[in-house]
Amino acid sequence: MMLQEKEKNSDLIGSDRVEGTTVYGADNDKIGSVEKLLIQKRGGQVTDAIISAGSFLGIGGEHHSIPWAKLDYDTELGGYRLDVTEEQLKEAPRFKAEDADRAYDREYQSRVYDYWAVAPFW
Amino acid sequence: MMLQEKEKNSDLIGSDRVEGTTVYGADNDKIGSVEKLLIQKRGGQVTDAIISAGSFLGIGGEHHSIPWAKLDYDTELGGYRLDVTEEQLKEAPRFKAEDADRAYDREYQSRVYDYWAVAPFW
Repeated sequence: MMLQEKEKNSDLIGSDRVEGTTVYGADNDKIGSVEKLLIQKRGGQVTDAIISAGSFLGIGGEHHSIPWAKLDYDTELGGYRLDVTEEQLKEAPRFKAEDADRAYDREYQSRVYDYWAVAPFW
Repeated sequence: MMLQEKEKNSDLIGSDRVEGTTVYGADNDKIGSVEKLLIQKRGGQVTDAIISAGSFLGIGGEHHSIPWAKLDYDTELGGYRLDVTEEQLKEAPRFKAEDADRAYDREYQSRVYDYWAVAPFW
């Protein structure tokens, strides 16, 4: 799908453009892709992106909740960039696809925000 | 897909749960559904939901950009509610599916925020 001119130059992005976008690591290697976003119901603030990593057939992959502020869009790469390598990402708080409920667990979120050194949103 | 317990009780919602959700009007009639969200690239704030209305076969439908603050989630209905009727919505700023670029047009957005009496985000 081609980006139209206004869309490209906008300070806004559609959620459909974010979902599925590739995430690159500090060394420009593909780390994974954005599965979905977590949004505060009340205020509409995106808090985290859920990244699916280490699986290119949808099997055995790890999921990571990544604070939105840690994802930089890189126009050259055409994807988001994280300032960690794929190896380092393995040490970050994660969960299995079948444990998707973890993303909403405050204890897990605490570990996420601690790991990424971002001020918690709660 | 069943909502898991933590997800249900969370103050966060996944973008995948918002997209496709039915939007009801003031009279509880189905008005349309959420197609996607517009998000500020920099801060991650959801500004608007793009609603697809008046089309149940995907043909001839109108799209509306609706400020996020105007959409209330109604747990009884299991969808978002707008405080206008389907008839009134037809008077709101809208665009055709093939003019999706309009959503990123500041002149269009100005009319949207004016119509819905919401303070602009820009």
